[in-house]
Amino acid sequence: MSEYAIGVDLGGTNIKGGVVDVNGKVIASESVKTNVEKGCEEVVHRIVQACEQVIRKSKLDWSAIRGVGIGSPGTLNLRKGIVLFSPNLPCMNGVPLLDLVRARLTGVRCILENDANAAAYGEKWAGVGRKVQNLVLFTLGTGIGGGVIIDGEVLHGFNDVAAELGHQVVYADGRLCGCGNHGCIEAYASAPATVRRMKEAIAAGKKSILSGDFEAADISRAAKQGDQTAREIMEETGRLLGVVATNMLHIFNPEMVVFDGGMTAAGDLLLTPIRDEVKKRAFKASQEGVQIVFGELGANAGMIGAAGCALQA
Amino acid sequence: MSEYAIGVDLGGTNIKGGVVDVNGKVIASESVKTNVEKGCEEVVHRIVQACEQVIRKSKLDWSAIRGVGIGSPGTLNLRKGIVLFSPNLPCMNGVPLLDLVRARLTGVRCILENDANAAAYGEKWAGVGRKVQNLVLFTLGTGIGGGVIIDGEVLHGFNDVAAELGHQVVYADGRLCGCGNHGCIEAYASAPATVRRMKEAIAAGKKSILSGDFEAADISRAAKQGDQTAREIMEETGRLLGVVATNMLHIFNPEMVVFDGGMTAAGDLLLTPIRDEVKKRAFKASQEGVQIVFGELGANAGMIGAAGCALQA
Repeated sequence: MSEYAIGVDLGGTNIKGGVVDVNGKVIASESVKTNVEKGCEEVVHRIVQACEQVIRKSKLDWSAIRGVGIGSPGTLNLRKGIVLFSPNLPCMNGVPLLDLVRARLTGVRCILENDANAAAYGEKWAGVGRKVQNLVLFTLGTGIGGGVIIDGEVLHGFNDVAAELGHQVVYADGRLCGCGNHGCIEAYASAPATVRRMKEAIAAGKKSILSGDFEAADISRAAKQGDQTAREIMEETGRLLGVVATNMLHIFNPEMVVFDGGMTAAGDLLLTPIRDEVKKRAFKASQEGVQIVFGELGANAGMIGAAGCALQA
Repeated sequence: MSEYAIGVDLGGTNIKGGVVDVNGKVIASESVKTNVEKGCEEVVHRIVQACEQVIRKSKLDWSAIRGVGIGSPGTLNLRKGIVLFSPNLPCMNGVPLLDLVRARLTGVRCILENDANAAAYGEKWAGVGRKVQNLVLFTLGTGIGGGVIIDGEVLHGFNDVAAELGHQVVYADGRLCGCGNHGCIEAYASAPATVRRMKEAIAAGKKSILSGDFEAADISRAAKQGDQTAREIMEETGRLLGVVATNMLHIFNPEMVVFDGGMTAAGDLLLTPIRDEVKKRAFKASQEGVQIVFGELGANAGMIGAAGCALQA
């Protein structure tokens, strides 16, 4: 009768918890502050609190819950349930997260998954990829994350650190990425990288309605209002995402490439150049039957996917 | 009692056949001309001939053979056993290779595999990757091929065209590749691309003992004799291969990256810059426990791997 799971999306600012049914439908959800500055015990407390609040809201009993799936950013040891290194949750580095959560949720089965892997699983299970078994997902936000589904399963790799898709190189001698590597797609096409390229264009004398401080969303808005520079910058982001989407077609030959995350609010302004670039670059056989799309689950992809991983485990 | 398989490596010039035992040991091998200019029926005839010759040489009976594995270049439909498109075997495009071979080898189980996938499987099964379950292989020759092994299995993708690792982009606006895409690693680091870069360097006034027409092997030789330009060109090939090896670490998190093919004759001249670049670029967690090596099976990797695929099927 355990037809539900709780998915937890652990973020640097908020923790989202959701009760999700076996069809991937969200029955109830809640968001609480992460309070990362208060340290690891507080974060664990907040995770448990999110679970308890959302159970209450769902009017279900814990006995109806098959398990809790926690999607966490950073590099993780999945088998041991440890957060190894997470830049946005520095207090969690080295913390045996699963053990600490299990100690609080006695008798509840808990699993850990990387947040972008969870989002990929979510889109495959209950989102835009429902009908496919092979899917590559990029999450476009402050960084560029990735998740890969092969024959319905998450690709984890040898040390659980596969699918770091934001750190494939598009210019071998290019911009320095936050990771220390040069020319990663993240250094060009993440939200802050797109803002940086826009500011450079303005500083170089390109005309725009934007000035001073602004965000990626402002660039989309300006482009939609006819700002030519903003349009060019966003199209270049799309073009370079098309380069890595092509890489993914050649490397994985998936049925679908999904883009998720805040940047997708730009809509066709971003999606059209991605698709155009893939069409221009990818092998005919690698393009055949492949869909290049935005996700359907939006900000809930990670939470839903984490619940799905818990149901599947 | 069927403790053997025949592996066939179908090349544009030669067809190699080998009887291989369950431990990956080659009992007997033979090479015959492909005669590609005489058309598809002749090529099929030559494949069958290679099998028959090598059986005779092994002094085994067909009853000892569990199956025949054919490694073919190009894009293939593995389930249907059809060669879809193979630039080096133009007469085979669209040919139902497996059906034609089966019609000649009645009662013998035959399977088809991409040649680079077969090489990857060979190195994993009986070569340098014997002790690992996750491995990425690059074949460095006229082109750059690839094969990926995940949890001991070949990655095929949705349309059997995964692991086209030579067509990942290292310079988004770079050199035009033979495939029509811009900036593929193949356009920089294949044997002919390395020769091209060397000729450009000489044309630009760089001093070298080489001139006129030469091959990639001549560049290695010159470098070993102290030719500074030759050394720089070969090191640049290695550096860029290190960039894509880093991509592989970030994308697949494998235990091992293997380089195979003619170019590996350059030895440490090539391997050292590959390793240096990976060390510089890759995440610490992605490098942990990973070996970057040359293959052990040399020119036999594809043949042995094809036999291994037939044994496993």
